[in-house]
Amino acid sequence: MIDTAPIDAIRPLLSWLDMAGVAVFAVSGALAAARAKQTIVTFAFFAAITGIGGGTLRDLLIGAPVFWVGRSDYLAVCLIAAAAVWVLRADRWKLASLLWFDAIGMAAYAVIGAAKAHSLGVPPLPSIVMGVLTASFGGIIRDVLAGVPSILLRREIYVSAAALGSASYIVLVELGADSFVAGGIGFAAGFGLRALAIGRGLALPGYRDGGD
Amino acid sequence: MIDTAPIDAIRPLLSWLDMAGVAVFAVSGALAAARAKQTIVTFAFFAAITGIGGGTLRDLLIGAPVFWVGRSDYLAVCLIAAAAVWVLRADRWKLASLLWFDAIGMAAYAVIGAAKAHSLGVPPLPSIVMGVLTASFGGIIRDVLAGVPSILLRREIYVSAAALGSASYIVLVELGADSFVAGGIGFAAGFGLRALAIGRGLALPGYRDGGD
Amino acid sequence: MIDTAPIDAIRPLLSWLDMAGVAVFAVSGALAAARAKQTIVTFAFFAAITGIGGGTLRDLLIGAPVFWVGRSDYLAVCLIAAAAVWVLRADRWKLASLLWFDAIGMAAYAVIGAAKAHSLGVPPLPSIVMGVLTASFGGIIRDVLAGVPSILLRREIYVSAAALGSASYIVLVELGADSFVAGGIGFAAGFGLRALAIGRGLALPGYRDGGD
Repeated sequence: MIDTAPIDAIRPLLSWLDMAGVAVFAVSGALAAARAKQTIVTFAFFAAITGIGGGTLRDLLIGAPVFWVGRSDYLAVCLIAAAAVWVLRADRWKLASLLWFDAIGMAAYAVIGAAKAHSLGVPPLPSIVMGVLTASFGGIIRDVLAGVPSILLRREIYVSAAALGSASYIVLVELGADSFVAGGIGFAAGFGLRALAIGRGLALPGYRDGGD
Repeated sequence: MIDTAPIDAIRPLLSWLDMAGVAVFAVSGALAAARAKQTIVTFAFFAAITGIGGGTLRDLLIGAPVFWVGRSDYLAVCLIAAAAVWVLRADRWKLASLLWFDAIGMAAYAVIGAAKAHSLGVPPLPSIVMGVLTASFGGIIRDVLAGVPSILLRREIYVSAAALGSASYIVLVELGADSFVAGGIGFAAGFGLRALAIGRGLALPGYRDGGD
Repeated sequence: MIDTAPIDAIRPLLSWLDMAGVAVFAVSGALAAARAKQTIVTFAFFAAITGIGGGTLRDLLIGAPVFWVGRSDYLAVCLIAAAAVWVLRADRWKLASLLWFDAIGMAAYAVIGAAKAHSLGVPPLPSIVMGVLTASFGGIIRDVLAGVPSILLRREIYVSAAALGSASYIVLVELGADSFVAGGIGFAAGFGLRALAIGRGLALPGYRDGGD
């Protein structure tokens, strides 16, 4: 199970964000399968990998029990998300609505990943990296398996927003802030930057683009 | 080492299936290298990744010691398989013979992976997922590294057969069946479905293929 | 942290090689991002994955705490390497200079990876594999994420040199050699073979190239 014992103050928020994050990411994985005209089995596989992949890597790296192995609800959420996309033909929804859900999941996971690592004694810099990995790795694996260019290779701001969110949380907690406040600010910072990227096409300059 | 202590009843079958599964999957990895006209070193790398990759992921996820790290025989089997494919020019064998060997390995691993996880206290749904991962992940990594479309993206029934096999085993054991009987039925179910896929070209419908 | 306690005799050499290896591999990751005209965030991601990816896999497989999670310096080195490549426009350096740095890192990591696993009780054959993985896996992940053919699929001698280096170290230590001497010989063997590959285009024959 996810170890949130040392961060009880923000447990209700975290629990809600945690399951919501899995669901949102699972939907995005199933949508990738829908775009590739895949089968229901691939829907389920992509939903699970995208939904729980980032947190799995985080838990392996920090030496914690992998959060979904000891219980059934996280996997069940992924399977339900895959079935829902298949049945509801969610790929006909407006893409924008999904982008916003994904932004919420990303911002939540950036804070949750950093908070879990930090609460287990991981130093600040690796904790920030855990937040970034939790928020982005599921999507990266999904893209590699689907054979499409990963989010890493697009210039749109995504990983940067995750980094801003987890760094904000860690810096504030290190400065003595209440973890609930730090979590809220970290979430808002990550979500806000990602919202600018979605709404205004904000992107990072590529190498040499801005230098000469 | 692979922890089969809690499932002593099916240990002889499991031991035989286990090493046979590594060998069969290692051969399929070496054949992928042969098709790409690779070197003997790549043969060995692909054989090892395909042979032991699925079980490695399972062990990392359930927190067990990785089964091949504490001993030399599993790696030795992979190296022998790579050398055998190189020397015997096994890529000229009929493809069908390999498909059948692979089906045996897949069905065996689906049961073994689920049984190992379940015997260590993992709940039913994650245990079934462990069976599917053990049976399919080695081949997925092999395909990604080789740059060919992974089995995940083909509609042929493969992952589904692994899911049927591991789910049959877990459901029967949960219902109180003898683990030897459950293992045999799980193996037969997974192998049988895969055999139908090979023999009759059975495939799953892609998204929207069957719906409109 | 990296557990070198049982190999104190070569600790100074190992520490130097270890950080140098991370830096050199991180630079090669950032250069891959530069070639793809990526953003500074992708530079950092590729530098970290390439710099610490191999050692991360090794530590997960042998069940040791992942070496960079409990401290900040390894990640800091990766970020500095990424920033340095961005600012110094290192992709305009002669490619040859990078190849030689990379060869040093590869040979060092092949010995370090094997030595760490062996010192924790892993048998000889899996220890050699750990050396090969530590030396090559970061680069493999980098190539897969970047969507370019991985070093595994090129015939140039690279993985073979890592295998020669780690095997030399393990065989010598098993025969009773001093670990410092064995480490030096292993490094020289791996680096020497890689140097021949770079300097003279030494490559392995592909399957059937040399056989008919």
